[in-house]
Amino acid sequence: MRTGQDVIRIDRGAREVEVRDLAQGRTYRESYDKLVLCPGAEPVRPPIPGADDPRVDVLRNIPDMDRIIAQLDKGATSAVIVGGSYIGLELTEAFRARGLATTVVERTERLMPWLDPEMTRILDYHVATHEVDLRLGTSATAVRHGEDGRLVVDLSDGTSVEADVVVMAAGARPNVDLARDAGLEIGPRDGIVVDAQMRTSAPDILAAGDAVETAHLLTGEPVPSMLAGPANREGRIAADTIADREDVGGYRGTQGTAVVKVFEMTAGGTGLTETELRAAGMDFRKVYTHQNGHAAYYPGTAPLFLKVLFDPAGGKLLGAQVLGWDGVDKRIDVLAVALRAGMTVFDLELAYAPPYGAAKDPVNMAGFLGSNLLRGDIALWYPEDYPGCAARVTILDVRTPAEYEAWHIPGAVLLPYTELRQRLDEVPRDRPVYTYCRSGFRSYIAYCVLRQNGWDEVAFLAGGMMTYHGYHMTPLAVGNGGMPMVAHAEDQLAQRPGALEHI
Amino acid sequence: MRTGQDVIRIDRGAREVEVRDLAQGRTYRESYDKLVLCPGAEPVRPPIPGADDPRVDVLRNIPDMDRIIAQLDKGATSAVIVGGSYIGLELTEAFRARGLATTVVERTERLMPWLDPEMTRILDYHVATHEVDLRLGTSATAVRHGEDGRLVVDLSDGTSVEADVVVMAAGARPNVDLARDAGLEIGPRDGIVVDAQMRTSAPDILAAGDAVETAHLLTGEPVPSMLAGPANREGRIAADTIADREDVGGYRGTQGTAVVKVFEMTAGGTGLTETELRAAGMDFRKVYTHQNGHAAYYPGTAPLFLKVLFDPAGGKLLGAQVLGWDGVDKRIDVLAVALRAGMTVFDLELAYAPPYGAAKDPVNMAGFLGSNLLRGDIALWYPEDYPGCAARVTILDVRTPAEYEAWHIPGAVLLPYTELRQRLDEVPRDRPVYTYCRSGFRSYIAYCVLRQNGWDEVAFLAGGMMTYHGYHMTPLAVGNGGMPMVAHAEDQLAQRPGALEHI
Repeated sequence: MRTGQDVIRIDRGAREVEVRDLAQGRTYRESYDKLVLCPGAEPVRPPIPGADDPRVDVLRNIPDMDRIIAQLDKGATSAVIVGGSYIGLELTEAFRARGLATTVVERTERLMPWLDPEMTRILDYHVATHEVDLRLGTSATAVRHGEDGRLVVDLSDGTSVEADVVVMAAGARPNVDLARDAGLEIGPRDGIVVDAQMRTSAPDILAAGDAVETAHLLTGEPVPSMLAGPANREGRIAADTIADREDVGGYRGTQGTAVVKVFEMTAGGTGLTETELRAAGMDFRKVYTHQNGHAAYYPGTAPLFLKVLFDPAGGKLLGAQVLGWDGVDKRIDVLAVALRAGMTVFDLELAYAPPYGAAKDPVNMAGFLGSNLLRGDIALWYPEDYPGCAARVTILDVRTPAEYEAWHIPGAVLLPYTELRQRLDEVPRDRPVYTYCRSGFRSYIAYCVLRQNGWDEVAFLAGGMMTYHGYHMTPLAVGNGGMPMVAHAEDQLAQRPGALEHI
Repeated sequence: MRTGQDVIRIDRGAREVEVRDLAQGRTYRESYDKLVLCPGAEPVRPPIPGADDPRVDVLRNIPDMDRIIAQLDKGATSAVIVGGSYIGLELTEAFRARGLATTVVERTERLMPWLDPEMTRILDYHVATHEVDLRLGTSATAVRHGEDGRLVVDLSDGTSVEADVVVMAAGARPNVDLARDAGLEIGPRDGIVVDAQMRTSAPDILAAGDAVETAHLLTGEPVPSMLAGPANREGRIAADTIADREDVGGYRGTQGTAVVKVFEMTAGGTGLTETELRAAGMDFRKVYTHQNGHAAYYPGTAPLFLKVLFDPAGGKLLGAQVLGWDGVDKRIDVLAVALRAGMTVFDLELAYAPPYGAAKDPVNMAGFLGSNLLRGDIALWYPEDYPGCAARVTILDVRTPAEYEAWHIPGAVLLPYTELRQRLDEVPRDRPVYTYCRSGFRSYIAYCVLRQNGWDEVAFLAGGMMTYHGYHMTPLAVGNGGMPMVAHAEDQLAQRPGALEHI
C-alpha cells in the first residue's frame, strides 16, 4: 500500500507504470501483471470566471469537508451553493443547521433535476420553507471577490449574491486522463469503457468505480455509475477477473438507484425516469399514488409521492420515483429490487406493521393501480393532457366546495362525488368526462359511478391535484381546508399525528 | 351493507343464508349467487381455569382496545400479558409507555418464538432493559380473583403474579364454525381450504382473509395467512373470481413476511426460518451479518442482526430474519421482494445514502458472504458446532485480550488477529482451526492469514459472538470494552452517535 504516489503514465508495451513519489519528488517505474484503474471522479467547476478561485470550494472528499468546516468555524454566516442536486441539497441542509443564510443556484427550473419535473416541486417548496433562498432557472456567471473578504456570485438574471462561502456542487466528471493518454477507449459518457468483467480496451488493464461507464440495466446504453454500491460491486468483479474467477458472473447493469435526504423529506428513484424513457423512445405507462408512509393512525406519517413507470405489454417495472417524509428509502429499495428482478406491477407486496407501512402500502397500491390500468379496469388522464383536453371533455372537480374555491382547474365544474349519483343529469352525456380530486381516490369513485351509469368515456386524473400542481406549477393550495399541501402535511405531522386524510 | 346481522347458517342447497338480526331478534333468509366468507379469526384463550373470565382481556379489535383503555383509565397500575409474540409485545410497549408494572408470560424459552432461537435473545434482553418482568419458559395455569379487585395469574413455576389487567395474547384461530357446519373443507391448519382463486370446496362459495389457509410460497404446504397484506390481496382475487376475471391470476402463495416494533428495536422476517426448513427436510445454507443500519459516521445507527437462509445449489433465497434499531423494516421488505422474485444471494444490491444505508449495506454484505460461501471462497462454522467440535479443532479467539477476558468460548486460545502473522508457530498444524471474533470480520481476516499460510481446514464463526451468545445463551458481555452488547449498542446510540465499531 503506497500512499503519496501519483501514477503519471502507463507504459502498456513494457507493462509498467511511471510513478511520482510526491514526498521525495523522484519518479520511478513499477511493473504489473494486471493493472486496475480506480481514479474516481472529480467535481466539475463550471467554466465561468472565478470558479477555480482557491476560495471557491467543492465537496468531494474529507479534506474538502474539513476546508469548508474551517471556513464556517472562522465565523462564516452566509453561503452560496451552485447546484441543486445531491451534494448541493445535502450541503444546504448542513449549512441551514449551522444557521447560515443559504442561497442555492440551480440552472434548471427545479431541484433534483434528475427526477421527473412533476415530482420535484414539492421538494422546492419544502426546501424554501427552511428559509433557503432558491434561485431556480438561474446560472452562476462569475465569482468575484467582494468587500470584507466575502465572495460575490453573479447570476444570469443580472443579480448578485454575496457570501462567505461559495461551493460548486455542479456534478462530477470521471478522471480519465491517465487512461486516455494510455490509449484506452473512453466512452460517450466520458468514462473509461469496460466490459462486464471490468476489463478496459487494453489487455490486462481493468477499471472500476466512478471513472468507468457501464451499461444501463434496461437500455443497455452506457451510463456513468458514480454510486458507492455499484463501485463496491465493480471492485469485487475486477478482483474476480484478475483471479480468473470469471465464472462467478460479471456486472449486470446499472439501474441508477439513488436516495437523498433533504431536511425532513427524502427523495429518490430507481430505473428510468419518464424523461429518460421518452428520450430513449421506449413505450411506457405510469401511475401515481399518495398513500401515507405508514398506517394513518400510528403517529408520524405523511403522504408519499410515488410514481411508477412500467411496460404497457406485461407490466414490467421500468422506473420509480418516491418523495415523502417517512419510509421513502424503503420504497425505493423495494422497487429497485423488484425492478432488478424483472418484476411487474402485478407482483408488488410488502410486509406490514402500523409503524412501518399499511396493509394498503403505497407500493401495493401502485401495483393494484398499475394492474387495473393494464387490465383496462380503469382509465386515467394526466396533468399533461390539460389544457389540450379542455375543449373536448367535461372536467369534473369532485372535491368539496371549499377545496374547489381554494383552487381548481380552470373550466372545471364542481360536483362533489357524494352528490354525483343524485345529480347525474347535470353531467353532459355527449362528451368524455374527466374527473379529478386531491389524490385520485374520490375521482376514482366518481369514475365508477359514471361508468356504471352509462358513460363510456370517463377517466380520472392520475395522482390528482397532488401531481397536477407539480406538473403545472399552479398554487399548492389543495390540502384539506385549503392549506398549502406541504405545509398541511407538515402541520398535521406536528400537531395531529396520524390524522392526515387519504382522500 | 347490513351491520348487526349474524349469519348463523348456510343452506347450500337453496343457496341461501340464515341471518339473525341482532337488534330486532328476528331471523330471516337471504339468497345468494356467490357467497364470500370473511369471518376472520378470534383470539385464543388458553384452556386454563379463569381464562374466559370477563375481566380477562384479549386484543383483536377496537372494542377490545377501548375496554383495555377504560381499565387503564380507572387507575390500573399493573398488567400481566400471556404471550410474547406480536400482540403481546406491542401491548408490552404500550403498557410500559403508560407506566404500568408489566409481566410477560411466554411458554417458550424466548420472545417472538416464530423467529429462530439464536436471533431472539437480543430481543429478550432489550425488553428486559425496559423493566419488563419477563417469565420465559413459563405458562399461565389459572387466573383467579385476588384482593382489592385485582386478578392473580398462577404460573407453571409455582409462582403467582397479581395485576389489575390481564390480557391473553396467545395467538388467534380462524373462525370456521359456519363453514364447517356447511360441510366446507377445513384444512390441517384449521382454516377454510381455498384454491388460488379463493374458491372453497363448495361451488359458488369463496373465502378470504384470516379464516382461510393458503399454500406457502416455498413449500406449497397449507399455512395460516393471518396478515393484512395477504388478506387485502385475497379480497381482490375473490372479487375477480366472482366477476369471472380469473385471467388476472390467482393467489401466488404466502411467504409470511412480518415485522414488529418492540420499544426501540424492530424484528421481523420473511420466508422460512431455519426451524421450519429443518422440519420440512429442506437443504439450506446460512449466513449472519451485523453491519450497521446505515453509514456509521451518520448519527443514530446500531448493528443489524441479519440472518439469511438460501438454497445450497443456486443460492436462491429461502428466508431471512432481521433484528435491530434502524432500517429493519426496509431490509425485511427488500429481502421479501427478492425472495418473492426468486432471487439469489448473488443478486442483492441496495440504494445508498448515509442516512439510510451504507455502500456495504447489511443486505449487500449478506449477499457477498452467501456468494463467497457457495463458491467455496470461505468456510464457516456455526454456534451449534460447539461443544461438539471442541475435541477435534483448535478454537482461536482473535479478539483483544480485554474482550477475551470479559468472556470467551471455554477452551478457546487467545491470539489477536493483529499478531497472527508473527505468531503462526503457536497455531497447531495437525488439526482444523476455528477462528472467532465479535461479528465475523476479524476472524475472517485470521481465516485468510491461515489459509494463505498453509492451513487447509480453517473456518470462521458465522455471525461471531453476536450470534453465538444468542444461540448458547451465554453472557452478552461482548461489546467493545466488555460492556453487554445491547447496552453497548444503545449507549453508543445515545452518547456517541455513529461511533459504533463494525468489528
